[in-house]
Amino acid sequence: MITVEEAQTRIIESLAAHLPSTETLSLADVLDRVLAESICSDLDIPPFDNSAMDGYAVRSDVFASRTAEYPIRLKVVGTSAAGHPISARGISPVQCYRIMTGAPVPEDADAVVQSEWTQLDPEEKDVIWVSRPVPKGLNIRRQGSDISNGSAVLAPGTRITPAIIGILATLGKSRVTVYQKPLVAIISTGDELIDPDQTPMPGQIRNSNAYALHAAVCKAGGHPIIIPHAPDHLATIIARLDQASQYDLILSSGGVSVGDFDFVKQALDANGTQAFWRVNMKPGKPVTFGHYRHTAIFGLPGNPVSALVTFELFVRPFIRQWQGDTQWARMVVPLPLLDDFEEISDRRHYVRCQIRTQDGVVGVTANPDQGSAIQTSWLAAGGLMVIPENQGPWKKGSLVPVMLLH
Amino acid sequence: MITVEEAQTRIIESLAAHLPSTETLSLADVLDRVLAESICSDLDIPPFDNSAMDGYAVRSDVFASRTAEYPIRLKVVGTSAAGHPISARGISPVQCYRIMTGAPVPEDADAVVQSEWTQLDPEEKDVIWVSRPVPKGLNIRRQGSDISNGSAVLAPGTRITPAIIGILATLGKSRVTVYQKPLVAIISTGDELIDPDQTPMPGQIRNSNAYALHAAVCKAGGHPIIIPHAPDHLATIIARLDQASQYDLILSSGGVSVGDFDFVKQALDANGTQAFWRVNMKPGKPVTFGHYRHTAIFGLPGNPVSALVTFELFVRPFIRQWQGDTQWARMVVPLPLLDDFEEISDRRHYVRCQIRTQDGVVGVTANPDQGSAIQTSWLAAGGLMVIPENQGPWKKGSLVPVMLLH
Repeated sequence: MITVEEAQTRIIESLAAHLPSTETLSLADVLDRVLAESICSDLDIPPFDNSAMDGYAVRSDVFASRTAEYPIRLKVVGTSAAGHPISARGISPVQCYRIMTGAPVPEDADAVVQSEWTQLDPEEKDVIWVSRPVPKGLNIRRQGSDISNGSAVLAPGTRITPAIIGILATLGKSRVTVYQKPLVAIISTGDELIDPDQTPMPGQIRNSNAYALHAAVCKAGGHPIIIPHAPDHLATIIARLDQASQYDLILSSGGVSVGDFDFVKQALDANGTQAFWRVNMKPGKPVTFGHYRHTAIFGLPGNPVSALVTFELFVRPFIRQWQGDTQWARMVVPLPLLDDFEEISDRRHYVRCQIRTQDGVVGVTANPDQGSAIQTSWLAAGGLMVIPENQGPWKKGSLVPVMLLH
Repeated sequence: MITVEEAQTRIIESLAAHLPSTETLSLADVLDRVLAESICSDLDIPPFDNSAMDGYAVRSDVFASRTAEYPIRLKVVGTSAAGHPISARGISPVQCYRIMTGAPVPEDADAVVQSEWTQLDPEEKDVIWVSRPVPKGLNIRRQGSDISNGSAVLAPGTRITPAIIGILATLGKSRVTVYQKPLVAIISTGDELIDPDQTPMPGQIRNSNAYALHAAVCKAGGHPIIIPHAPDHLATIIARLDQASQYDLILSSGGVSVGDFDFVKQALDANGTQAFWRVNMKPGKPVTFGHYRHTAIFGLPGNPVSALVTFELFVRPFIRQWQGDTQWARMVVPLPLLDDFEEISDRRHYVRCQIRTQDGVVGVTANPDQGSAIQTSWLAAGGLMVIPENQGPWKKGSLVPVMLLH
């Protein structure tokens, strides 16, 4: 059996020659997509010196003088409001402009004094008194201080967040080229499975993997397609896999163990190649990865918990890397155990856990029943504790790595 | 000025009398929505005792005997495969059933021995030899061990994850009642703003807030509607706000500072009520919350960075609580500083930061330029360090609370 890391390496290697296709979409449609173009700026941001405050644009040399006596009297000779270009007329040392947040700084002015530091003259119109020194540059956002004209701002492979959408809008990118989402065919197998809207007969259970995996693919950024469920019959499973192989990735669940009825593995033996079968992890050991004809395929365990754990560890990274995402890994943070964790396993153990604050400390506690058939142990699970092979027991307070899921 | 906590409390209080509407959707459409019904189970899960392994179903009393000699010989009298009900015929102590993962356990059998512990007899058909004792209950998933018939499984207010979709499918909930998403009207104001596909004239900038907030509302689970941009003109802003007030929430950006052109605040003074204006935080101090006519409104600062920080702290919690989500808060975890953080502020400081591994330790480092006009400081920001008022300087290695953003 190979390690989780070795399995992940083989998955990454399988994508080495993959060139994702691109599509160009409106800015409103690219949230969470992966950028496929380099974004350079063809203007300075801010495009002009502007005020960070409501106040008065002044010449700082007036305040730099050693002989200055406070308050200093200034004459307001104009107003600069955002969106309104100001005349080229400069100001003298005894003059200032009323200026609004975001408005252009007038010629000759090199600082903005906020309104709170000034008083209007009680009698003389358009005269203010400034109560303290105003250093050069105060409250001025310099042209190009955020982004300079010609600079590279975003690289291909960047996942697009709301803040990045703001930057793209600022740079005038109303249409953006992103990598396409992979089309992911989902096949579940097993004579025992019925659809959720059917009533189980003795020996039957409802198909939950197809729907849970559909949702997991959506969350991971893929486009899921549910293929009709396949009974335990080799020819039917091959027909379903042939249908699924027109898409970018096949996810099957069930049929990859060692039993007489594990036909997915048999179909893969007949018409595909395996990069790995069985990984030294718990739950999820029988996970398989390879190619069915020329399409990448994950054979996930039929067990609902194992299917989602192996999805997190292998399928989600595949889906994100397939579309060029450079930040494909879930965040793993060390958190203190809020209770002892006694169990030691010879397999890497991914433990469904809750992250919560106790006595002012954020920590982690294992959900009670870690059985791989216990779907409800996912409830309130905010992460997976990653317990290394053959290590433990872990005492309350020990730091353990936790993969954050949401 | 009020504190961030006081502001959040006033927002929560404003929702005290709010009863979210519901809608019933197909299981494939409820990912990330908030459950509006109690989900009880009308069957045991698993619905019958079944095998966790491929192997042989046996009677454990054979192995419990002190006089048992290994290997023990058993006759295979049948096969239990998933999805196929088995005959009621039981087994004697010298008999067993071949059994597949997930298949029903035959009557009288009370343990499953995995194939690895057995050997087929080399000559006699349908005879196996078991090499070691098999304790009662081994490899059997008991009926009802995950969910028992009649039990309450999910409560209203639960956000629906892929794992929960799996549980809903298992319980036969092919249609699910969820709370409606709030319709969120987005208004940006300012004479300086142009659309992203336009070329700025002197003094103009492209409107980024409308698009960044559109994306942020989507991520938070709301349904955004962009209202045409409003210039700095009181009557127009009132007309836009009147249009926006037909929706569930108004988000405006800009126009809430103290300048002569801050018409959103004037419109709110005329036609609304304010729950707060100005919060002791940085960036984002001028944030406003209240009601315009009868519709909740956030007046966010015009500054793109301030707009998104105040969105995270106030608007996202509002949108999630509006639709009944009981887990509305972002996760905050303590992480060690990878560099000194010297700055001390009299306002609560939300510092855009990167979370990364250095020398094997996951830690946090502030992005270089925290200016509120520096949109690019959001790039690669995985969180916001929450630096308390009047505290610091913070040394490398100190634990600081970090709000995780993704």
